[in-house]
Amino acid sequence: MRPFLSHPFDDDKLKEECGVFGVIGVADAANFVALGMHALQHRGQEAGGIVTYDPETGFNSARRFGYVRDNFTKAGVMATLPGEIGIGHVRYSTAGSKGATAIRDVQPFFGEFSMGGCALAHNGNITNAAALRRELIERGSIFQSSSDSECIIHLMARSIQKNIPERMKDALRRVEGAFSVVAMTRTKLIGVRDALGVRPLVLGKLGDGAWCLSSETCGLDIIGAEFVREIEPGEMVVIDANGVESFHPFEPAKSRFCIFEHVYFSRPDSILGGRSVYETRHAIGVELAREAPVEADLVCPVPDSGTPAAIGFAAESGIPYGMGIIRNQYMGRTFIEPTEQIRNMGVRLKLNVNRALVRGKRVILVDDSVVRGTTSRKIKDMILDAGAAEVHFRIASPPTAWPCFYGVDTPERAKLLAATMSEDEMREWIGVDSLKFISLDGLYRAVGEANGRDPKAPRYCDACFSGEYPVAPSDMIEKGFEMKAAE
Amino acid sequence: MRPFLSHPFDDDKLKEECGVFGVIGVADAANFVALGMHALQHRGQEAGGIVTYDPETGFNSARRFGYVRDNFTKAGVMATLPGEIGIGHVRYSTAGSKGATAIRDVQPFFGEFSMGGCALAHNGNITNAAALRRELIERGSIFQSSSDSECIIHLMARSIQKNIPERMKDALRRVEGAFSVVAMTRTKLIGVRDALGVRPLVLGKLGDGAWCLSSETCGLDIIGAEFVREIEPGEMVVIDANGVESFHPFEPAKSRFCIFEHVYFSRPDSILGGRSVYETRHAIGVELAREAPVEADLVCPVPDSGTPAAIGFAAESGIPYGMGIIRNQYMGRTFIEPTEQIRNMGVRLKLNVNRALVRGKRVILVDDSVVRGTTSRKIKDMILDAGAAEVHFRIASPPTAWPCFYGVDTPERAKLLAATMSEDEMREWIGVDSLKFISLDGLYRAVGEANGRDPKAPRYCDACFSGEYPVAPSDMIEKGFEMKAAE
Amino acid sequence: MRPFLSHPFDDDKLKEECGVFGVIGVADAANFVALGMHALQHRGQEAGGIVTYDPETGFNSARRFGYVRDNFTKAGVMATLPGEIGIGHVRYSTAGSKGATAIRDVQPFFGEFSMGGCALAHNGNITNAAALRRELIERGSIFQSSSDSECIIHLMARSIQKNIPERMKDALRRVEGAFSVVAMTRTKLIGVRDALGVRPLVLGKLGDGAWCLSSETCGLDIIGAEFVREIEPGEMVVIDANGVESFHPFEPAKSRFCIFEHVYFSRPDSILGGRSVYETRHAIGVELAREAPVEADLVCPVPDSGTPAAIGFAAESGIPYGMGIIRNQYMGRTFIEPTEQIRNMGVRLKLNVNRALVRGKRVILVDDSVVRGTTSRKIKDMILDAGAAEVHFRIASPPTAWPCFYGVDTPERAKLLAATMSEDEMREWIGVDSLKFISLDGLYRAVGEANGRDPKAPRYCDACFSGEYPVAPSDMIEKGFEMKAAE
Amino acid sequence: MRPFLSHPFDDDKLKEECGVFGVIGVADAANFVALGMHALQHRGQEAGGIVTYDPETGFNSARRFGYVRDNFTKAGVMATLPGEIGIGHVRYSTAGSKGATAIRDVQPFFGEFSMGGCALAHNGNITNAAALRRELIERGSIFQSSSDSECIIHLMARSIQKNIPERMKDALRRVEGAFSVVAMTRTKLIGVRDALGVRPLVLGKLGDGAWCLSSETCGLDIIGAEFVREIEPGEMVVIDANGVESFHPFEPAKSRFCIFEHVYFSRPDSILGGRSVYETRHAIGVELAREAPVEADLVCPVPDSGTPAAIGFAAESGIPYGMGIIRNQYMGRTFIEPTEQIRNMGVRLKLNVNRALVRGKRVILVDDSVVRGTTSRKIKDMILDAGAAEVHFRIASPPTAWPCFYGVDTPERAKLLAATMSEDEMREWIGVDSLKFISLDGLYRAVGEANGRDPKAPRYCDACFSGEYPVAPSDMIEKGFEMKAAE
Repeated sequence: MRPFLSHPFDDDKLKEECGVFGVIGVADAANFVALGMHALQHRGQEAGGIVTYDPETGFNSARRFGYVRDNFTKAGVMATLPGEIGIGHVRYSTAGSKGATAIRDVQPFFGEFSMGGCALAHNGNITNAAALRRELIERGSIFQSSSDSECIIHLMARSIQKNIPERMKDALRRVEGAFSVVAMTRTKLIGVRDALGVRPLVLGKLGDGAWCLSSETCGLDIIGAEFVREIEPGEMVVIDANGVESFHPFEPAKSRFCIFEHVYFSRPDSILGGRSVYETRHAIGVELAREAPVEADLVCPVPDSGTPAAIGFAAESGIPYGMGIIRNQYMGRTFIEPTEQIRNMGVRLKLNVNRALVRGKRVILVDDSVVRGTTSRKIKDMILDAGAAEVHFRIASPPTAWPCFYGVDTPERAKLLAATMSEDEMREWIGVDSLKFISLDGLYRAVGEANGRDPKAPRYCDACFSGEYPVAPSDMIEKGFEMKAAE
Repeated sequence: MRPFLSHPFDDDKLKEECGVFGVIGVADAANFVALGMHALQHRGQEAGGIVTYDPETGFNSARRFGYVRDNFTKAGVMATLPGEIGIGHVRYSTAGSKGATAIRDVQPFFGEFSMGGCALAHNGNITNAAALRRELIERGSIFQSSSDSECIIHLMARSIQKNIPERMKDALRRVEGAFSVVAMTRTKLIGVRDALGVRPLVLGKLGDGAWCLSSETCGLDIIGAEFVREIEPGEMVVIDANGVESFHPFEPAKSRFCIFEHVYFSRPDSILGGRSVYETRHAIGVELAREAPVEADLVCPVPDSGTPAAIGFAAESGIPYGMGIIRNQYMGRTFIEPTEQIRNMGVRLKLNVNRALVRGKRVILVDDSVVRGTTSRKIKDMILDAGAAEVHFRIASPPTAWPCFYGVDTPERAKLLAATMSEDEMREWIGVDSLKFISLDGLYRAVGEANGRDPKAPRYCDACFSGEYPVAPSDMIEKGFEMKAAE
Repeated sequence: MRPFLSHPFDDDKLKEECGVFGVIGVADAANFVALGMHALQHRGQEAGGIVTYDPETGFNSARRFGYVRDNFTKAGVMATLPGEIGIGHVRYSTAGSKGATAIRDVQPFFGEFSMGGCALAHNGNITNAAALRRELIERGSIFQSSSDSECIIHLMARSIQKNIPERMKDALRRVEGAFSVVAMTRTKLIGVRDALGVRPLVLGKLGDGAWCLSSETCGLDIIGAEFVREIEPGEMVVIDANGVESFHPFEPAKSRFCIFEHVYFSRPDSILGGRSVYETRHAIGVELAREAPVEADLVCPVPDSGTPAAIGFAAESGIPYGMGIIRNQYMGRTFIEPTEQIRNMGVRLKLNVNRALVRGKRVILVDDSVVRGTTSRKIKDMILDAGAAEVHFRIASPPTAWPCFYGVDTPERAKLLAATMSEDEMREWIGVDSLKFISLDGLYRAVGEANGRDPKAPRYCDACFSGEYPVAPSDMIEKGFEMKAAE
Repeated sequence: MRPFLSHPFDDDKLKEECGVFGVIGVADAANFVALGMHALQHRGQEAGGIVTYDPETGFNSARRFGYVRDNFTKAGVMATLPGEIGIGHVRYSTAGSKGATAIRDVQPFFGEFSMGGCALAHNGNITNAAALRRELIERGSIFQSSSDSECIIHLMARSIQKNIPERMKDALRRVEGAFSVVAMTRTKLIGVRDALGVRPLVLGKLGDGAWCLSSETCGLDIIGAEFVREIEPGEMVVIDANGVESFHPFEPAKSRFCIFEHVYFSRPDSILGGRSVYETRHAIGVELAREAPVEADLVCPVPDSGTPAAIGFAAESGIPYGMGIIRNQYMGRTFIEPTEQIRNMGVRLKLNVNRALVRGKRVILVDDSVVRGTTSRKIKDMILDAGAAEVHFRIASPPTAWPCFYGVDTPERAKLLAATMSEDEMREWIGVDSLKFISLDGLYRAVGEANGRDPKAPRYCDACFSGEYPVAPSDMIEKGFEMKAAE
């Protein structure tokens, strides 16, 4: 009887690594931060941290493994986080840093400078972090974590600027990669997006003189804040009692927002680029039904992320929509693997087939993506065991063939099914009657680009599908990662 | 900052009080029991208990508050439950028994008789428990809990029969009410349903010579057991190495299965009376669309329990189906209530409106039932705040006007909205453009009775809608509960 | 690296199994009970329980493994124990009942009778418990624990007397063995000692109208209560708002108090039979110095229980007293056994030799008793390793050659060193220059019997030394225990 | 019912702030470190930390609040600390740094330099830490704790030396105050004492090629290590596979070991300056009996620290020695304060008077020191309540009139009884028949200086008695502390 890890989400998914949230101008700021983090929990479930500032007790922080709801709801914890300004972070910790000391890697990070303290949390990934770290250690900085984000704090500590926002500009100009930063001083809340705006960050207003920053708009909804606008790519906002000031410290660049935020990462009730994520996914389903129609009796989502696209697919195709797969809503993180006999029960602990519904039917399963493909195979087995006549997979994203280096946990390239197989080989390997992915152009259309993708100047970062990395991942290249040859 | 209770399920629902599971003939029986209980977790989330028997260490038990996944997955706990036979119980504990000693009330209960031990768990409610308890105490029995189920064990202890199944027959013949019992001795697994068969209980086969009993078929699916048949109303099965033996110890009666199991309690992927619960709920939605059509732009489920009926309603009406309300899947049991300003955030912590989808639309909300109506009001507010043009409620059950005394936690009658208001008054109070409940006949049609309800001999227990109690609740009548006058 | 159990007290000691405490007439009775139990913690360290009664919430209880200070000091636990009357129990749980369900065996036990509830805790051992249990189960009683004490509650439940004190008399008249009982109803605090008065129980007064019962006077001191008197052998006191009423329900018998309470069990600051335990132990040391003098340079106690006798020995012999062995006061229950190399470190974790003090000296070690002798050997090794010239053991009790059946955890007879070896063989086996035990007559003199022990009618129970059991241990005899042949 | 803090040791004592331990060359080094820390637990009970290095997993650390026995005995914790080299630290955390983030202040501290990592723990206090910290922050160092010790790591990070021992010399030459440092790299164990040698540090040998460093020799005894020698004042030892190398990086100075280590801090079984601490304390008692004799019937120690001096006093005076005060060995850190009525029970929870022994007697109480005097008053009350005829206090140290700045937690000067009262005023305030302190010369004689204290060149740091600080406490002087005028 040994325990095994069974994520509430399929292990066979890309993992967003972070969500950030900040608020200024409210009593008990930590409560608002906790609520915002709770709304952003889908962006990182392993750990979370909150820092607040209170004139009497100074900066306080709490960092914990586990869900926001289990940690930042305890009176004992929240009482240690007084103040009217605070920031928070939820995190998916990658395998590498797990273990006894990993709590050190939980953000926000904090540094005490001569002009006061600064706490900082970040969503994204710094692609030259290894080189920066080497250089900083050489000069006497002591790192407390293995996180790339800590570089920013050390670069700030060594800046000769006289105030914290200027030091942050100094530091972030040295940094490559994708980042949406939320930071705070004793009196200011700061938000920054990298020049390409790869990761989201939005500004909200919460009554009179109170503001918040959140990775997604669902973080505003939960506390009843009004959605003001997205922070622009390359913008830094500095918010204090006098309101919001905007800066553009980086060299201008064309925006390259992550298209996978639309496909999977963001919550369906969030607004991205002026549209509901739900509607975009619905539109992907519609597009997919047009691109890859098939005769069938039932359109089933692979719960829960495939649901909006499945509804769209059903609506467009006229094939009835139904819940052929039921998710156990009490699934937690771990379960016992009792015996060899039921070793492969992982999926069944989380999902069960609605046998009576699928029996004898030709079933279209709509899923958001295929990463390693192992889950697709298991789900296909379950559906066939229940007596389905045919199984057709329709995937709401193009084949995932390249790893992400901008803040998403992807398997190494060799483990991505689409990196080594053609669509037909994948169909064969998964063992279904048909398998179709939406085209890259179709995806662009669904997110609102009527003409599809402009290969000269794509509007999104779609490196995981195209292999075209908008920022060269220098640490990875140094380690030997081979980029796609320019065409 | 005080914590408040916020159930993952709406507080404004009826609560099933129990699920039972048992297995015999497998190594590490406790693991199978835990998996079965996990699949039945929707029937009771407050606590769970497992008893196993092992020739070397005897009977062992573990009883815990909280989810199965959090308790019965720990190697330390499971190692204390060796053996090839075991039973388990999940429980929704009613408010009355909460507190320091309530772990005593967590089943299974255990009694050591001169011919050996017996553990027993039960789903339902014994309606003459108070009278039995009084009588047993008078004669020197010592009760360890406040649970009605403990009466059964004491009645067995005092029986003069020479073996445990016979003692159980003796005891259960003294008992009134609804009960599905799973029990075990050192060598036998026993299952019993009351004469009316109010609560479900099914038999499964797990390979060669291993058997299981479960409240629902989803408990069989999770361990890969084959669904053999339902235990019949009034039947007792005694299972051991020689197989399954069947008895009918009670006076024959016409079956009166709980119709609310179809509406809400059972999991959509379970099979009841030969049909998938999902399909029944879908059929309820279809029936409801016929009975109470309305012009609108969008059919939205109130997640998650309203979903199958909403899909049916949309399919029948031709109005597009969409997820206008998004559920936060990380919602746990408790959250901090931060300030007055967001005091009524309970619903928003769990649910958020998909604003972009509902804005400007005439929305039909499909929910499974209305109990006190408080949630319906909050959801209506959320939908209107998001800019919906109209809100129409369609309810997949008739008005809930009478409390249940057969194992479901219902508010007292005065708190049931439908006990004090007409449908129109309810519509007014909730504040929606229209509110319609499915008719009792319509519900019977949806569960497969082509001619609707036979008022002379209804096939189901529908007391919560009709006030016609198939077994007089004698303890409650003694306490002053007034029954509906016979017509 | 496997953990091993290392008791704060030497495993090579007899273990007292219980201490009891009760109070009536004070606000927050549970606090007083906790304090009393804390003072009695030396009588049982494995677990403790408290029951209180409050008119509003009824009887409440909390039972926990571990120290009083760690459990019954938490606001969360104490808040569940309201009321002005309460009883408590500390327990040394014997190996047999440890494991998953043993919390059931933690007293007080509780029974609800038709005239109200009764909670009961007991120090001692019922020597016909197995026979009583068999008979009660035969008649339909359900036992919840493996404890002998639960018999009393079931006997009471079956009594036809109309009030609880009378039922208790009925029950206790059926019981054989040694018991000091503390019990409570909604309005009464009850204390009883068996006819021989084997275990102690004292009455205290706490201001106006408040009373308490305690195993030892140190339980009175801690709450500032006045020591009124010992409960007499065979006496039952019933205390309520009207004061203390005294009954003598048993057949009169000559008192046989446990002499080992003087030697080891009781705390040195308690008063027993009108004398301080410390003074009695000092007198034992004096007597031992007279009986078994030896030329030496230093008298060392084996800490902590040998200390008073060592001081007495030094005072009488004129040999300097010194702390040759230092006890680590931070020793807890468990420690890691790191490697083979230091496997036998058990004693050194708890004790260290004061090398500079003992080097080159002839050392007299004074210990309270020798049970299996293993510790004596290790301590001798430590002292010799540190360079002592000679080691002489002086033991403040006669050879322990017989097990106790009256509430003390003793190894089976074959494991008692003195059951199988002569004094000289023991000296050889331990490996010391001399080994002397106080004589049984000497011990009687030290506890105040000027003429030593009267073999016809000894005033104490000294069965562990003499093999003369004042009550035949009938359960044990049934299991095959062979009594010493009458002379 | 609110909890209050009740230390196992009297709050009215000076607190040693730290103990350090290190080992190299053994499998499972963490186990040895934990044992060493357990033996040094009296030097700090609030928290402890261990760092180990293992080639496979690198540096690992665990830092916890609470006792060593409760944290560093758990298999789960110890398994995270593999390797053959490790250091540990026990800590008494001062009130200022308690709270949510204080675990950051628990040593050892760790820094990753370009040539590898270094962990460091320290006993003592850096008296120019505030100035160093200011300077380091100005240049871009980021502090993770409020501990003075972290300065050393940052100074090392900024050194331009090429190896860690040289960097440590650089750093420690910048540091003022008292420090005994234990540090480790991947291959070396390092120990350093400041030039005056204020805090102790000893070297031990553990079989072939394994070495350890410990604050006291009792840390060597527990693991069976051989005591090699004390690290000299101003010495640095660097230990690796090649053995022990010795350096003297600081300007030579006359040694000034802390005399209070003899009086109270060190464990009685440790060897300091070639003598057992027990013997020194015994000698203090002898000296005190000569300096301040009094007619009496009983010499009682105030347990446990006054015991050796009391034995010495009794031996010299010829007055019988006895345990008039019994300590409750189950006292933990906290207890409930139940009601006003027993508010001042703090002392009685820990101590009880042996009434029968002291009644009617003239009692001499021997204690190690008087700090604020509050405990002395309570103990006097207890003894008189028990019926003592006279109470005489004899104190085994001179009046404590000045705070310590070298690693001991002392109240501010105004709270030291001896800073504001004469000996006679103190006697009056405590309310005893006589009160006498040993003279400073007497104390020097007892620790082995036949001629007493040489006022020109005292051999010990006795600033707490004399106000003569061997190192000017520069941070404190900057904050306004007024030094004693030079004579």
